[in-house]
Amino acid sequence: MNIGVLGTGMVGRTIASRLVGLGYEVKMGSREAGNEKAREWAQEAGSKAGEGSFADAAAFGELVFNCTAGEHSIAALEQADASNLAGKVLVDVANVLDFSGGRPPAVGLGTKDSLGEQIQRSFPEAKVVKALNTMNCDVMVDPTKVPGDHDVFICGEDEDAKAQVARVLREFGWPAEHIVDLGGISAARGTEGYVALWLNLMGVVGTGQFNIALVR
Amino acid sequence: MNIGVLGTGMVGRTIASRLVGLGYEVKMGSREAGNEKAREWAQEAGSKAGEGSFADAAAFGELVFNCTAGEHSIAALEQADASNLAGKVLVDVANVLDFSGGRPPAVGLGTKDSLGEQIQRSFPEAKVVKALNTMNCDVMVDPTKVPGDHDVFICGEDEDAKAQVARVLREFGWPAEHIVDLGGISAARGTEGYVALWLNLMGVVGTGQFNIALVR
Repeated sequence: MNIGVLGTGMVGRTIASRLVGLGYEVKMGSREAGNEKAREWAQEAGSKAGEGSFADAAAFGELVFNCTAGEHSIAALEQADASNLAGKVLVDVANVLDFSGGRPPAVGLGTKDSLGEQIQRSFPEAKVVKALNTMNCDVMVDPTKVPGDHDVFICGEDEDAKAQVARVLREFGWPAEHIVDLGGISAARGTEGYVALWLNLMGVVGTGQFNIALVR
Repeated sequence: MNIGVLGTGMVGRTIASRLVGLGYEVKMGSREAGNEKAREWAQEAGSKAGEGSFADAAAFGELVFNCTAGEHSIAALEQADASNLAGKVLVDVANVLDFSGGRPPAVGLGTKDSLGEQIQRSFPEAKVVKALNTMNCDVMVDPTKVPGDHDVFICGEDEDAKAQVARVLREFGWPAEHIVDLGGISAARGTEGYVALWLNLMGVVGTGQFNIALVR
């Protein structure tokens, strides 16, 4: 399967490298084809890795990861073009972090919306699955980085799309029983809102190498 | 120690009963002395339990729990009167849940504020400690209701106040290593924002008998 990864930051590069390692063909997308970080990544990642514009990467992928900064995700996806996302699974890993008021950043889109919902509304023909946005990218692609049981959350409107994302998560190393389906895309309010607590917890732990577990 | 518990709902009654069981003298406060639920609670809870107005309960307590509905907490604390809260530890257990748009409710006060901070700003002479608001009240007062290791979060500006609250939490049954101090009161944005995820997780689990654990 070909996969498009939108975004050249740490999250995009980490996920893209892991996907290449699993044998997928991956195209990393950025605002303009030839982006230096994307080219460098593609060179290091080998023959299954390529790069291009957001639209190139979205057109290439049968599955597309949104790893852009949440504040710019809608604009990036508009550049990717709705026609290149239509009918595809769009995994939204992004968080909205507003540092304009200093640290800690304001997290999310308030109490009545989320980026996941905003993306689904803006690209109604894409099958948006919010996933992985509740942890550091090293943990996203290798849950054994944190010892013991802990959980990854997914949500979205399309059951088949969630099942497809869950298969990729299992390839990342997530045990099926620790992939927690929270329901429809409005649950992104929960996983995006949690990021404020995640930032606090990072302060306690001192690194991003942690996660939470649902205990029942 | 005398403790005031503001609020006659499930959370207030559960916490107040547990405190009486631990040997504290407890006065439950409500909008008007003689509130039916408060009188019923006091009668059942025995000789160490009493009831009165918000002001009566706040004046009575050396430690005060805010267990009112978050939407009404500031008004309730104004009725309790700043003079009755000055210099005291005020444990804020409340969450703001706005059901006006249906279910799931809008959670919290947005991205740049929290009820805990709002209370601390409004009552600067109180020592506000946000605690326990990330779980069902049965779990708050008896963490063994959820098997295994899981965590309770506290935050606030005053170290002595947090230590005093941690002592009460240990009496509730929380092991010291599972009382996680998140820092200053602005961390209430995290624990209040998490409640949106908590609501999703309650949908998954089917009951409120669960919690999260920090895994590192």
